[in-house]
Formats: sequence, structure tokens, C-alpha cells
Amino acid sequence: MPANFASDNVSGASPEIVAALTSAAAASAMPYGADDWTARVEAKCAEIFETEVAVFPVATGTAANALALAALTPPHGAIYCHPESHAYVDECGAPEFYSGGAKMETIDGAGAKIAADDLAARLAGARPHGVHNVRPVALTLSQATEAGTAYSAGEVATLCDIAHDNGMGVHMDGARFANAIVHQGLNPADATWRCGVDVLSFGATKNGALAAEAVIFFRREFAQEFGERRKRGGHLLSKLRFISAQLDAYLSDDLWRANARAANRAAARLADGLKTLDGAHLVHPVEANEVFAVLPEAVIAGLEGDGFGFYRMGGAGVVRLVASFNTSDADVDAFLAAARHHAEQQS
Amino acid sequence: MPANFASDNVSGASPEIVAALTSAAAASAMPYGADDWTARVEAKCAEIFETEVAVFPVATGTAANALALAALTPPHGAIYCHPESHAYVDECGAPEFYSGGAKMETIDGAGAKIAADDLAARLAGARPHGVHNVRPVALTLSQATEAGTAYSAGEVATLCDIAHDNGMGVHMDGARFANAIVHQGLNPADATWRCGVDVLSFGATKNGALAAEAVIFFRREFAQEFGERRKRGGHLLSKLRFISAQLDAYLSDDLWRANARAANRAAARLADGLKTLDGAHLVHPVEANEVFAVLPEAVIAGLEGDGFGFYRMGGAGVVRLVASFNTSDADVDAFLAAARHHAEQQS
Amino acid sequence: MPANFASDNVSGASPEIVAALTSAAAASAMPYGADDWTARVEAKCAEIFETEVAVFPVATGTAANALALAALTPPHGAIYCHPESHAYVDECGAPEFYSGGAKMETIDGAGAKIAADDLAARLAGARPHGVHNVRPVALTLSQATEAGTAYSAGEVATLCDIAHDNGMGVHMDGARFANAIVHQGLNPADATWRCGVDVLSFGATKNGALAAEAVIFFRREFAQEFGERRKRGGHLLSKLRFISAQLDAYLSDDLWRANARAANRAAARLADGLKTLDGAHLVHPVEANEVFAVLPEAVIAGLEGDGFGFYRMGGAGVVRLVASFNTSDADVDAFLAAARHHAEQQS
Amino acid sequence: MPANFASDNVSGASPEIVAALTSAAAASAMPYGADDWTARVEAKCAEIFETEVAVFPVATGTAANALALAALTPPHGAIYCHPESHAYVDECGAPEFYSGGAKMETIDGAGAKIAADDLAARLAGARPHGVHNVRPVALTLSQATEAGTAYSAGEVATLCDIAHDNGMGVHMDGARFANAIVHQGLNPADATWRCGVDVLSFGATKNGALAAEAVIFFRREFAQEFGERRKRGGHLLSKLRFISAQLDAYLSDDLWRANARAANRAAARLADGLKTLDGAHLVHPVEANEVFAVLPEAVIAGLEGDGFGFYRMGGAGVVRLVASFNTSDADVDAFLAAARHHAEQQS
Repeated sequence: MPANFASDNVSGASPEIVAALTSAAAASAMPYGADDWTARVEAKCAEIFETEVAVFPVATGTAANALALAALTPPHGAIYCHPESHAYVDECGAPEFYSGGAKMETIDGAGAKIAADDLAARLAGARPHGVHNVRPVALTLSQATEAGTAYSAGEVATLCDIAHDNGMGVHMDGARFANAIVHQGLNPADATWRCGVDVLSFGATKNGALAAEAVIFFRREFAQEFGERRKRGGHLLSKLRFISAQLDAYLSDDLWRANARAANRAAARLADGLKTLDGAHLVHPVEANEVFAVLPEAVIAGLEGDGFGFYRMGGAGVVRLVASFNTSDADVDAFLAAARHHAEQQS
Repeated sequence: MPANFASDNVSGASPEIVAALTSAAAASAMPYGADDWTARVEAKCAEIFETEVAVFPVATGTAANALALAALTPPHGAIYCHPESHAYVDECGAPEFYSGGAKMETIDGAGAKIAADDLAARLAGARPHGVHNVRPVALTLSQATEAGTAYSAGEVATLCDIAHDNGMGVHMDGARFANAIVHQGLNPADATWRCGVDVLSFGATKNGALAAEAVIFFRREFAQEFGERRKRGGHLLSKLRFISAQLDAYLSDDLWRANARAANRAAARLADGLKTLDGAHLVHPVEANEVFAVLPEAVIAGLEGDGFGFYRMGGAGVVRLVASFNTSDADVDAFLAAARHHAEQQS
Repeated sequence: MPANFASDNVSGASPEIVAALTSAAAASAMPYGADDWTARVEAKCAEIFETEVAVFPVATGTAANALALAALTPPHGAIYCHPESHAYVDECGAPEFYSGGAKMETIDGAGAKIAADDLAARLAGARPHGVHNVRPVALTLSQATEAGTAYSAGEVATLCDIAHDNGMGVHMDGARFANAIVHQGLNPADATWRCGVDVLSFGATKNGALAAEAVIFFRREFAQEFGERRKRGGHLLSKLRFISAQLDAYLSDDLWRANARAANRAAARLADGLKTLDGAHLVHPVEANEVFAVLPEAVIAGLEGDGFGFYRMGGAGVVRLVASFNTSDADVDAFLAAARHHAEQQS
Repeated sequence: MPANFASDNVSGASPEIVAALTSAAAASAMPYGADDWTARVEAKCAEIFETEVAVFPVATGTAANALALAALTPPHGAIYCHPESHAYVDECGAPEFYSGGAKMETIDGAGAKIAADDLAARLAGARPHGVHNVRPVALTLSQATEAGTAYSAGEVATLCDIAHDNGMGVHMDGARFANAIVHQGLNPADATWRCGVDVLSFGATKNGALAAEAVIFFRREFAQEFGERRKRGGHLLSKLRFISAQLDAYLSDDLWRANARAANRAAARLADGLKTLDGAHLVHPVEANEVFAVLPEAVIAGLEGDGFGFYRMGGAGVVRLVASFNTSDADVDAFLAAARHHAEQQS
């Protein structure tokens, strides 16, 4: 069956993670996070991020984002985000729901990234009428972005400075955090709190887990009532150890980085192949595990006909291809061969 | 290590369910429920409940309850419940959150059950001042209850009739639904929609799954916007198949009833043993997998000292013991032997 | 036309207040509270309450209560109240709405008052399961109560101490605050912040204004985001001076106390008359401007037939009679004469 | 004192409206809208709009807008609006609050108006991912707009058709409705429901009332739970007759149109005068009672120095001047004379 590049959530799960689940399933343990796996995850996060953190495992990225943003945002607050960000456009209003009706203010920018000058300019003009306008309280950045690009550490630091100077907190949506920092060769601390990130949605689901994300607070004062919020949102699993066991395995033996590296490598291989195709070009630099490419219509249609999985997305003639931790070279090469075949047919 | 009767969520997971997960983890599939496992779960629910249903898998019982209640309840509505119900007391206000601030009105009653006369009387006097008072819109019943008792089909039917006559919808919190109906020898349809239940939180987590519940709508018009609500609450898993695969195994080969039967049998064995203990008596009839018993303080303290897991809960001198799908006769007998030992020491 | 004792909101408005409105309506002024009337109201409140306060005029008592409670209460908080309190029963869930879904926990008590021991006991047993249970954060007391009784300063102080010891804030619903303290001969400071009240809904509407209440914060740190909340709730009037002008007149020349004294006097006259009626007795001590009396059915029916306004309310055979600032002795005497007439007819 | 053109809410109130309030204040009446004034307002609205309507008086425009939008919008809905609309930018998130966290989607356009093609294009591309995206459910149009322009009846009809074809409801923010339709010579029915408007915030406060707006439902099925929403929001005044009495006078003897005509005439006189000033020009056509004009900086500064009231608003070098029902020719002429004086000084 032809490979499925529709998303990294179409892939299954890493054997190491499945094994950890299986082992955990054989034991009894106290519920709601009072278990060894959860304690281990907190310890590992502190070690990996080189600082004390408050860690809350949850099952979905939308929950992680919305709960984290709600921890920063009163109902009359404004969350600044990119208009293509998942939290803004693809969570059916979850941040608005969890915050009690905050407003999301969008700042457009190339490559699904917010430019520092644009943020500064917007904040300078915010709230001309005081209580009549919502108050800027949070900035959310996607790392990697929805366009498969990544903010440099310097870019993140500048954005965080602007936000903090305006009294705002900074959230990072790291559904593909591993992919971004592996690409950049950054360590987790340098990519987050040392740049000023206050809270991170640290993703595992797209990178080899079944359903596991961790909300990681670097500024722990924001986490004070997070336990209540998570419970109230229905996101405190009774057998939380089954999320934690996934994260525990994910953070062991560098699995999380190995998986990300594999996915990035497959994406790069895809990109390299497509670049040389007649009539094709990349839309964004490939800085994680996603490729956005313009392809000739006949090639797109041909690949669809072959049964390859991907979305037309990101503009006319653009397709999005997402590589996973278990995308093989053979998967990529078969796709590229088919694309070349359709391109030749056409000419 | 002494057995842990603290809750049925301290137990691990059924091997059949773990095997199903493992198998699903090896495959690729489309996300967000567009997969075979999810389709199969919907089909099996329709078959088991003998009617067309709308089924929504989620990861927690709190999510199932709160989302289901929100589907019945506008923000200015009132949800009638027992004051000991999980939704009222142990979900940190999740129903209030998901409904946008509905009010939960409590009706007390023996054995954690609502009596029909009490419900009728309360509704007769509701809303003396029209728009100044919240409107009764939903009734929620726990089956089995938090006291380990169960409503008979007749009781449910009478309560549903009263609710429907007052224009209300009926939700059943079935975190321990299997335990209740197996005890009663009822089939699922007779225990739910044929009695008038409109929507069921159908639990699996406490009965052998890792994290899997299904919201099942018998009156499907209430489900119209449930997809949006689930997504907005962060409860639509991207790899939803990993919840569905658990439910699929749970509903196969009668596993769900077999597990419930095992847990109930263990609870009955516990109850039978404790009844004969000097100074002990049962607080509630044991109609599912929970035992509430008054024990002499020295016995309780002795068992705690031994390392058995359970809660002091339900009044002075009362302990709650919960049996699981994998509680063995040996577990029970060791507990009873220890209890008898402490009772003898005392006298 | 026979007098209307249905409520103090059936009465019109004090001529002094109407004159102030008329005068304000002739002038231009900056909107949203940047006007002289609003500044004067804040100054007068500080003077009358003998402390620095933050004052927010609004148009309704429900808005005052709900906004004030929301200032004390996160969504996962619990507000403790009497089950007969207006905020609990007669505001269609406004506190739940403004707080984002907080839970209102009721503590019953005679005369619509919460007893200190009952509050202490409830709080001692609150939150056995931590984040699974909502957190006690606010206590709301009605002064005068919905039964026409009043808390003594000592009672308020004891209740506030308990609340504060439990980390809670205290709100007083003072829709009939003037009536209560005039009855008790208390000054405003002794009746509020010196007892520990943190925020007061200070009513004028029922006591001679058209539509004017003030939310008065004694602990001003709770008021930090009140401006945003009021605006967001639609309760910041553009021509706020027309609320403030009412309050300005209300607080001038002791009008507020004079009005309350007149209403209380009329209620006392009613009560004195009814006490001597055969088959009648008072249900609660009359400590403000409301009388709850058991009357023979024939008397009630007779008075209804005469066209007097009042509600059957507070139990079987009980009527509620509310006196207003402009209830005359003649109004009362005519009612009493009619009651006596019907009582004699009956015997 | 120099005239204040900062807003139409700086003006006082029409003597006819004050007289009506004074008269109402002398009487007793049943509370919460069970009074003659409220009944009369509903009847007059039906007559003026030539159709059956459901009418709900409230005290503020923000309340009217937010409550009306909430009646059209579930929490997971999207409200389409202009980015300069009052509801979007100047209500501190009230629509988000009342709807339970709906998303407001902005469509920019010249003169603060939404163009039909832009709406159609946006809706055609809405919701590519189904439940992952909020659902378009409401369109809100300001009439007159925040730029002092007005939609023609044809423009409203086209926009309403597009909205209805997409299953959405249409709200009109008519804070300056009278000004718009008087300018256009339209009758109220032709300007609203005959074009497809479903619910109107009908303003009086800016046009001579103290604090009075009416939410008018032409599609009354949307009004079903409005009574509860209004109460729950704290917007059901106990002495509602004092809002209704204002509206009653406003709708009598064509006062509402006479006031609007006077304000529009003053705005036109201002605009005519400013057009002839060296270095000045109008930014938008003057189609109601607001003038946006570019003036030389020296002129602006001079007028500010003179003490005239107005805002710098709408871009660099732009001032906004708003005329009221009681702006006199002398007020306008004095302003124009001063402007000419400063312009001459400069040259």
C-alpha cells in the first residue's frame, strides 16, 4: 500500500512506547498521577530541560494548548497568535472555551511565523480605550510552525522579550517541538526558558506515542491552579500512568530525538527529490518534518490516483507532505519515483 | 504485596485490550476517528444496544459525563443529580464548565439513589419565578451508584418518565454500567433507552481498559453538535483509534460483561466474608463491585497496617472496598483472613 | 387603589433622586464614569464608610452581586450561600455565569441566615479529594436577608473570621443594606469592613432610586480587574452619570437612611397590627422592611380580593409584605383594617 | 464653554424623555417588565416596524449586542464582523463572554463596511476541517457604521442573503440606527427585516435617552431563551419601567427621528464647513451624525487648546466629530469659526 504522508498522526506508535504501556498495564498503581511513571516523567523533564518544572501529562495537543493558554489568560484577555496557528484555526475554539472567552488576536507573517516588529507594532497600539478593549496577556508561538518552519532561538528570545515587556506570558505549542530543535541542533533549555518561554506544550503523539502530551511550566507560578483546570476539563486521567508510561519511554534513551531525527531525515529526502522535479518547487524551507511543495496538477492527481496519502493545503497547487518517525527511505523513494513518472507522462 | 481495594482504577488492563492496542499501534490509519476501529465500535454499540446510536469515544469518565450533560443543558439550565454523584462532587465542576455555568440541583436519597417521589416533588416546585430561576433541563443518574447500589429498570423508567414529562433529558453515568446490569441480569437496551435514558456515559476504564469511555446517544438529536463540543474540549484524540481499539476489544467476545462479572463476584465474596465478622455490617446492599462496610476501628487500623489498600469513606467507621476485573479469590481471602485475625486480636 | 406590598421594587422613586436625574440630564459630560457625579459618589462612599474604597455603580442588584462574586471566584471555586439567597435562587445563575461556572454550595439556616457553626463544619469537611473538588473561595451573606431578618455585627464578624481563616473572601448582598443597619443602629463601617466584609453590593433601587446599585470594595485588591469585568458584562453605562447622579442624591442629606427608616417603620406598623389579629402570627422577627406572617386563608383571600398587592411566599399560609420608602401610615392602616374586617367575617 | 463633539454619549437627554421618567417615578407598578410602559414599547415597536416582534429593553448597547449575538451563537460558533465594529473592538469581549467563547472573525472593508464579495469568499472557504473549525453562525452589521457611513438597503439585503444561504443569522448593531435610516429616507421595516435582518440592537441612548436600548427580534424563534439570558446577565431591571418609559417617549411623536434628523443636520453642517477649509478633507462620506476629517495639525492643536471636545481617531491627522440631538447651529458655527481662525494663523 502506498505510503501515507497526510500527517504524522497517521503513523502508529514506537515499539518502545507500546512495550512500556504493556508493562504498565500488568501492574496496579494509585490513580490520578500518584504513581511512579508520572513521578519519573517529572524528573526526566527537569533533567532534560535543566531546570525545575511543573509537568502535567494530558492526552491531546488541543488540551495541552488550551489548558496552558487558560493558565495565562483571564476571560477578558487577548492571546496573540499567528492566523495559521493550530490553536487559532484548528481547535474549534478550545482556547476561547478554556479561558472563558478570551479573544485571539492574529498577526500574520511569512512561513507561519510572527515577526518581532509586527508584534511590537501591534502591542504599541493595543488598548487605546482601556477597559473597553481586551488586555494583551499571552503570546503563543508554534515550534515547529504549521508551515514546517522553525523559529531560531534568537527569534524566540526577541519575541519573548517584547511579550514580557508588555506584561504578557509566552506559550509555545510544541506539537512538533522535537522536530524543530533536532533540526536546529538546539538543546531543550536553550530552545525554551532560556529564550523566555513560560510554558510549553511538549508533544509526543505526532512523534511516536499513542496519545501523550505534557504541559511543562518553566514559570511555575502560572501552574498554581492548573491541577484544578485539568480536572475540570476532564483531562486528568484516572489511570494517568498510561499517559505517563508513554512519556517515560519517549524520554528514555533519547527516543524522542531519535524519532524526530528520522522524521526530519525523511522529510529532507522528500524535499530534495521534489526540488529536482520539473515544475515543482518548495513553498517553505523544510525545517522540521513537513514539506510544502508546488507540484504540477497532473503530478498531484497522479499521486492521488496511486493512493498516496497527502493533503492539498497551503494554496493553489500546493501539497503538504508530512514524514513520521517510521517513514522509511523506501516510502519516500516510491513516492518520488511515482512523482517523476507522472511528471514525465505529462511532458 | 497485599491487594489494593482502593478503587477499580488501581487495577491494570485486560490482556485482550492491551493486545488490541499493540496491534493497532503497528498500523497506519487516518486520524480523528476516520478509522476502522472507530467504525467497528459504533457498529457494535448499535448491535449490543439493539438500536441506532451515535457513539463518541473519549478518554475519561469526567469528559464523558460533562460533555453529555452539556449536550442536554443550556447555560441557564439546571441539572438534577444526587449529592453524592461523581458529576456533582468529584469532577471539580466539569459539568458547570462544559455547560457554560449551569446549576446542579441536588436531591438526596438513601443508597446514593434519587427517589421518584422526591424528584417529582422538587420539579413540581421548580421555577416559581420564571426567568429568575434556572430551568430544569437534565436528570443524571449513576448506574451503579457511588454507594455500590443499582437502580432497577423500573426505578429508572419511573424517573425518566418524570423527567420527560417535565421536558428534561436523562443522562446515565455508567462508569460502572457493566457491573450494574450484570448484577441485575438486564440486557443493555432494557437498562437504558427502553427505560427512557437519552444518553449514556458507557465506562470501560474501571472495568479493564486503560482509558476508554464512550458517550452513547440514544436520542441522536442531542448529539448534533457533540462533535464540535468534543473537539473544543480537547477530547477528540488525533489517534482516536487507540481509544476505539480498546473499546473494540472490550465489546468483543463479551469481555465487558465477563470482566464485570468477575469484579462483582469478588465484591460479593468480600461482602459475604465481612458480614460474618464480629462488629461488622454492610452499609448498602452490594449490587455491583463496591462494598461499604462498618468495621471495628481496630480491624480497620490493622488492615491499614498490613498494607491493604482501601478508603475510609461514607461515614464514621465505614470503609469502601472496590473489586476489579482481576481481583482474585486469593486477594479476597487474604483480606478476609487478615480482617478476622484483627477482629480476634481485639476481642 | 389599595396599596401594593408585593415588593419594594413596585414603588416609584424619591423626588430628590428624580430631581438629580433631571438636573444631570440637562448637562453634557464625558462618558463611562469620567464625570463629576461618579467622582462624588466615590468620595461620599469613602466618607460614609470611613475608609478608602473602590466603587463601581451598576444598574441592577443581580449585576452587582454576580460581578462582585466573580471578582472573588475562579471558575473552579465554590461560593457558599444560603439556599434562599437571591444570588442562589433568583438570579437565573448569574453568579455561575459571571464566574465562568463556579459552584454555589448552600448552607441552610433559620431566618435565611447562615449559622457560624454550620459554616465551620462544612468548610472543615470540604475538599476531601483535592483537585477533584471545587475550592471554597467565597462566602456571600444577605443583609437584610430574604426573610427580612438581619445579621448582627457579631454574627457577621464571626462568619467573616471563619471564611478568612479558610482563605475565602466575603461578599455582602446589601440590596436592603440600609434597612438592616438602620434597624440595628449600626454605622456603615461597623456593619461591613470592620466585621470583615470584603465587598458590598450596596443597594439603592429598592430604597428610592430608579436603577442604581454600587459595588463597593473594601479590599481593593479584589477590584483590580473589575473595570474589565463590568465592561465585558455590558454594565458600564456610557452615560454612567445617570446612575451616579441617583447615588449622589441618595447619599446626600442622609436620604438613604431616611428612606430606609420610613420603610422599616411602615413594616413595623404592619407587623404590630398583624400580631394582634386572630389566627395570625409572624414567621420571622421583623428586622428590616419585610413582614412574613401566617394569616388565615380567608383573610389572605379577602385581601387579595380587595386588590392589595403581596405574595404568598415562604410556606403554606404565609404571606410576604414589603414596605417601601413611601409607604404611608394610611396605606398600612387600610391594609390592617381590611385584614381585621376579613378576620371578623370569618369568625 | 466650547461644544463637545467627542461622542453623542456626552450629550444629556431629551426633555420629553426626562418628563416621561419623572412621571413614571411618581407611580407604583409591578416589576420586571409587567408594567404598562413595557407593554406600550412592544406595541409601538410592532407598529413602527410593521410586523410582530419580540422586544427586550436593556440599559446599554453592549448588553444589547452581546445578548443578541449570544441568542444566535453557540459557544463553538463564529460571528463575522468588521474589525472596526464596536462589538469586536470596544466591548472588552462581551460577545465572547455572552456566547460562551465564540470566535469573532473579522472581514475588513472600506468605510467600516463589509463588502458582499468579501463575505461570500470567506464563507466559501470556511470550515475546511469540519469540527476542527468553528462554525459560521452569525453576521453582525453596524448601521450606521463606526465610520459614520451607512449600508444601503440593497447592500444589507445582499449580505443577509449570503448569510442566510450559509445558515447564519443576522444581527444589526443599531446604536445609531435612527441616524442611518433618517439619512437614507428609509422606513424601519425596509431597513431591517425586509432586507433579512433577524435581530436589531435598537439604540436610544446616543440619541436622547439616558440609558435605553431595545433588542428587537424579527425572527422570534431566536428569542426563545432571551428572557433567561437577559436575567442571567443581570440586565433585567427590577424597575424595568424606567427603561421602558424612556423608550416609550422616544417612540412617541416621532421624537426618535426628529432627534436623529437634528444630529445629522449638525454633522452635515460641520462637514460642509470643514470641506472648504484649506488642507482639510473628509475621510468618509457623512451618512449619519459623525464626521471624520483630516485637518492640519495646527488646526487640531488650536481647537484642542480652545477646549472643543473631540477625538483624534481613524488614522494620522484624522479627527472624529460627533453631533448630538441637541447640537446647535451656534455650536457648529463656533467650531468652524475657530477652525478657520487656526487655519489662517497657520498660513
